[in-house]
Amino acid sequence: MFATGGWTVGLRETGVRDWARRRGVKHERLEAVRPFASGRVLDAGHVREALEALLRPGDRVALEGDNQKQADFLAEALAGCDPGMVHDLHLLISSISLREHLDVFERGVARRLDFAYAGPQSVRMAQLLADGKVEVGAIHTYVELYARMFVDLAPDVVLLCAEQADREGNLYTGANTEDTPTIAEAAAFHDGVVLVQVNEVVDEVPRVDIPGGWVDLVVRSPRPFALEPLFTRDPRHIGQVEILMAMLALRGIYERHSVTTLNHGIGYDTAAIELILPTYGEELGLRGKICKHWTLNPHPTLIPAIESGWVESVHCFGGEPGTERYVAARPDVFFTGADGSLRSNRVLCQLAGQYAVDLFIGSSLQIDACANSSTVTEGRLAGFGGAPNMGHDPHGRRHASPAWLSLLTGEAPALRGRKLVAQVTQTFRSGGTPAFVESLDAVLVGEETGMPIPPIMIYGDDISHVVTEEGVAYLFKATSMAERREAVAAVAGATPVGRDMDERRVEELRRDGLVALPEDLGVDVRKAQRRLLAARSVEDLVAWSGGLYDPPARFRTW
Amino acid sequence: MFATGGWTVGLRETGVRDWARRRGVKHERLEAVRPFASGRVLDAGHVREALEALLRPGDRVALEGDNQKQADFLAEALAGCDPGMVHDLHLLISSISLREHLDVFERGVARRLDFAYAGPQSVRMAQLLADGKVEVGAIHTYVELYARMFVDLAPDVVLLCAEQADREGNLYTGANTEDTPTIAEAAAFHDGVVLVQVNEVVDEVPRVDIPGGWVDLVVRSPRPFALEPLFTRDPRHIGQVEILMAMLALRGIYERHSVTTLNHGIGYDTAAIELILPTYGEELGLRGKICKHWTLNPHPTLIPAIESGWVESVHCFGGEPGTERYVAARPDVFFTGADGSLRSNRVLCQLAGQYAVDLFIGSSLQIDACANSSTVTEGRLAGFGGAPNMGHDPHGRRHASPAWLSLLTGEAPALRGRKLVAQVTQTFRSGGTPAFVESLDAVLVGEETGMPIPPIMIYGDDISHVVTEEGVAYLFKATSMAERREAVAAVAGATPVGRDMDERRVEELRRDGLVALPEDLGVDVRKAQRRLLAARSVEDLVAWSGGLYDPPARFRTW
Repeated sequence: MFATGGWTVGLRETGVRDWARRRGVKHERLEAVRPFASGRVLDAGHVREALEALLRPGDRVALEGDNQKQADFLAEALAGCDPGMVHDLHLLISSISLREHLDVFERGVARRLDFAYAGPQSVRMAQLLADGKVEVGAIHTYVELYARMFVDLAPDVVLLCAEQADREGNLYTGANTEDTPTIAEAAAFHDGVVLVQVNEVVDEVPRVDIPGGWVDLVVRSPRPFALEPLFTRDPRHIGQVEILMAMLALRGIYERHSVTTLNHGIGYDTAAIELILPTYGEELGLRGKICKHWTLNPHPTLIPAIESGWVESVHCFGGEPGTERYVAARPDVFFTGADGSLRSNRVLCQLAGQYAVDLFIGSSLQIDACANSSTVTEGRLAGFGGAPNMGHDPHGRRHASPAWLSLLTGEAPALRGRKLVAQVTQTFRSGGTPAFVESLDAVLVGEETGMPIPPIMIYGDDISHVVTEEGVAYLFKATSMAERREAVAAVAGATPVGRDMDERRVEELRRDGLVALPEDLGVDVRKAQRRLLAARSVEDLVAWSGGLYDPPARFRTW
Repeated sequence: MFATGGWTVGLRETGVRDWARRRGVKHERLEAVRPFASGRVLDAGHVREALEALLRPGDRVALEGDNQKQADFLAEALAGCDPGMVHDLHLLISSISLREHLDVFERGVARRLDFAYAGPQSVRMAQLLADGKVEVGAIHTYVELYARMFVDLAPDVVLLCAEQADREGNLYTGANTEDTPTIAEAAAFHDGVVLVQVNEVVDEVPRVDIPGGWVDLVVRSPRPFALEPLFTRDPRHIGQVEILMAMLALRGIYERHSVTTLNHGIGYDTAAIELILPTYGEELGLRGKICKHWTLNPHPTLIPAIESGWVESVHCFGGEPGTERYVAARPDVFFTGADGSLRSNRVLCQLAGQYAVDLFIGSSLQIDACANSSTVTEGRLAGFGGAPNMGHDPHGRRHASPAWLSLLTGEAPALRGRKLVAQVTQTFRSGGTPAFVESLDAVLVGEETGMPIPPIMIYGDDISHVVTEEGVAYLFKATSMAERREAVAAVAGATPVGRDMDERRVEELRRDGLVALPEDLGVDVRKAQRRLLAARSVEDLVAWSGGLYDPPARFRTW
């Protein structure tokens, strides 16, 4: 007890406080589960009972639904818990991908939700929200949600997945390490319980991705965990417009700014860029000058560029089904373990994407007149995923590169470079829906679901370039919002945003370098043919890989 | 081989490429070291010879000089290498703290350098640069340098340090995990060599912080690795001005914006804030309302607030010597392992600091009229460390909080909140040097050392608040650069930046909420007395901790 001036504060008041409450509770939880386990290995036949013993009403539970892999066996068990015993959970899920993720709410097992992405379940999600079955804390990006697990959303229990475990709990995640070590660390070092479903329990794992000391319980799932090939794009679906935009991006952005380090979002637009590097890029003499270091998952459409000697390194957020043997055979390019297989890591790849790469380019479904963009359309509460982390200018970066310096910004002495954040889209989506709109659907979705601010994916002031089939808008050169709107309109074609654009003003913007049309970039539109694609089918990709790429069944047509 | 349209590209040209060159070289390196090792354990008496066998001219080598802990035994051995055998290395060092870090350049062992901070060696560093003995690639923040290790600066060899290893290479880092897992991952999964100096080789480590499979070699250092108590501030050096500024920050920022999640930089200014929470903060009824979740190292000056029940959680970048027993006794607050000791992790704490906390507040040595700030003064090339990562508004954040929303920014629909980034400084530093200057010394240092842009620590447009003994400037409310300059000038006192400020304009700024003087915030200047400090000495901190805090010798005066 201290008398400090007029205040009496100190030890006396708090002397009775239990400073290891979490540890005590964890011990009790593990004791309660003991009847269902042999050592650290839980009996798969009693996993629901084990969860009922482990969990307490109101618990904060992180359920691994990653971008790709899913702790689906544990999700199913959780959804099957007796709501009389387990209720009012607060779930933390990166990606709501499975029925069971929402069954949990429908059945009353969980009530509160913090998440990052709800793509496949977004319609049902909106319905549950309207019915008052789920209370959303917030929608995050992936890494933002993990960040909060170390601050104000520390989980009590985490339910994860991995390829293999040994009896000491050492985990082998294989190519899809993804988010598992980060979520495990948040729980293992704050007296949370770490329970992992694995495809196999083995005597010795091929490599240790997560040490056994961090893991409390493992359970062998009766079937391998679900894994989505999210980053596979069949080149057959890439048409002339995507190829033209890829040519414009290559000349108007990559070549012009000497982009050597980069990240590609998912989509046919960026797949087209990957596939014209060995052809159009080669013709332009750009090999060795651009696109050397990548942060992205093992995109199959990157195989031709790798095989043609364009790519020095690729660091991955996660794996991609079918690329296992290919990646293992290219260790100079990919990050692999002593066992030969990929080591991915979302948090480190995000760090790399944020602070070490010069360009992010991704597809957008909707862009407004100010260049705010979103992949939320048609009333779906889809969330953010990872794009906002890649698609912004990181003000914490301090090292310079030619690409970064080429977007010099600020008033002296506060000069700094800027990350290239490019959005690529056709002016009209399939079905004639305009991609450029006066108001994003996201704004309405945000209002309807009571979000404090509109759920914009990438903000217009973070976007440096917009690419359409009309040309490239150099938004980073705009000195006012009005000029930014004009530059967007100049490439927005006949959409509501572009149709009233004055021709003469476009000429001025071209002259001032805010807009470049294909002819300004030396791009011959007639060359935008599918023969420019280094691979025109998944079969071609397999051939490029020397037979090392094993496409998932749904992509096999031969 | 593919004929794709007019291009002939493909496998034929690259069929002879060795895709596992790094793996082959790694194998050769480890073979060369074998005479000096028994299994994975290197003979400490032959560490120099081992390095000479391991390293090749031009290698990229990451030498662990963290913020706090140093692989000093390996640094010494590296500096002692024969430049005839080992030369032209490219060193990656977070923090250049030891003589040996620069001896390596003076002796010609290394030539190129990428780093983050050079505090203690900054003068000699500038000299070596002028003499052409060192070529600087770039100056980074800590995490930015690690990010590049996964992109364009993959290390060939990493020299790390840990508390203990077992004979399988499993590492125990103890409280100071800091940066070790991240650097280890960059090498272990890209066929780099991981060599670790440890204080002890044991049969079994208390917990596995880094799995043995990631580690190639360990060597027992004859003395424990160097570790600096960088985050310890003796309350005896906190005077009335720091206390006044702490009161202003508490009322004008923390209370006003309901800041519950935060990070404090190092310094007496922020230590003062920590020490008045249990007194002034308690009197204001703020306990439980602000300052609940922290991302910062175990600051000893935070002990009274923890003991008084203010603090729910603390996640740490690194440890702090002397706090080991205290931290181990407070597991509900700190992140600790099953062995009871702290688990820190710089990358994850930076992630948390960036995406999950609402406020960063730190001391600045110099601030210019536009609020650009720097800790570079007097011609020293000090670097950035970690402050820029905390001290900017992360545009990749998407979840809302009351504090974040209270700085709503942007034009609809692109509305978003903003991180609070506060700089605190007295208007004059000791010796009468003005803290507010027309031009930062950093600008001159940048010019002299040929940096592409001035090495500004935190940019004015990222700063939301400036606190001095005069009051608080709410820069986030400024609608123009001119207004931002006026708000800075209003709290810059008699410095060159503040002395010509018009009194009536200050009145207007107060009225418009851009500036608050102590009376505007209800802060009674007369109360700014040392008796407001919950602890007035290191001895008091020990007492607050119930004897659990063991201050390093240099802080013991009793």
